[in-house]
Amino acid sequence: MIVLGIDPGLANLGLGLVEGDVRKARHLYHVCLTTESAWIMPRRLQYIHEEVSRLLAEYRPDAVAIEDQILRKQADVAFKVGQAFGVVQLACAQAGVPVHTYGPMQVKRSLVGTGRAEKEQVIYMVKASLGVRELFNNHAADALALALTHLASAPMQARAAGLALR
Amino acid sequence: MIVLGIDPGLANLGLGLVEGDVRKARHLYHVCLTTESAWIMPRRLQYIHEEVSRLLAEYRPDAVAIEDQILRKQADVAFKVGQAFGVVQLACAQAGVPVHTYGPMQVKRSLVGTGRAEKEQVIYMVKASLGVRELFNNHAADALALALTHLASAPMQARAAGLALR
Repeated sequence: MIVLGIDPGLANLGLGLVEGDVRKARHLYHVCLTTESAWIMPRRLQYIHEEVSRLLAEYRPDAVAIEDQILRKQADVAFKVGQAFGVVQLACAQAGVPVHTYGPMQVKRSLVGTGRAEKEQVIYMVKASLGVRELFNNHAADALALALTHLASAPMQARAAGLALR
Repeated sequence: MIVLGIDPGLANLGLGLVEGDVRKARHLYHVCLTTESAWIMPRRLQYIHEEVSRLLAEYRPDAVAIEDQILRKQADVAFKVGQAFGVVQLACAQAGVPVHTYGPMQVKRSLVGTGRAEKEQVIYMVKASLGVRELFNNHAADALALALTHLASAPMQARAAGLALR
């Protein structure tokens, strides 16, 4: 199973691809897309949409795991992130890839064992799980953490769906 | 000049097309797209993106006039509208059509003469300017009002741009 994790944002958008299952995961790719505030908004959104669509076509992931936005943010921030979130979900719909959302607490619990883990602990576990040593961008690390969270919870979700069908 | 006005929203999105200039405008088309909250978000966004892209291809407008979002809204509302706003702007970028934004006050001032006009006065002026008699959806009426606002202000914008180039 290939999973694309996405840490959505307008100025910085993290993308991370992993392959494997709950027991063993392999790092495929990661990147942090950046758009400049000097670009007009349609151009920023088009760039994000194109890059996400390109990755979806190249790696053909089975699922996308995206960070659920915490809505205690300010309205203007929520509006900006919402626009990026919109074109990312559109790219997924166009590629026919299902989108799963996970909150920051779920990611921490899945990778470190507690929802109160520090960011550094999450990054440490991402590197350890994937055998990646070099330092990388925080947004890309968050994206890989989301992808790993989905790998870990996908079998449980499939079992729950199977039980629900009986 | 053909202008597509857009009143952005996730559940209801108004679209209105007019043709003409500051002196005389003609009604081409209007519609209110609705998406159900029961649909998953990627599907709702894909429907909006497809319909807006279809209208852009069919009528080939010279400009899009979209309502500037007032950000005193709640963060969760701003996040939802932001997602619809994102895919609409993406469709415009993909079609190569420039996007202009206007605030509600500008629309009221342009159509009724005062920024403190009532909604009913704006709708009355939309119908009168376009010679449209039948009652129509408020979101579509707002979209037509935005398109008319752009028709009225486009010559001034062009003149200002010309002066700036000297």
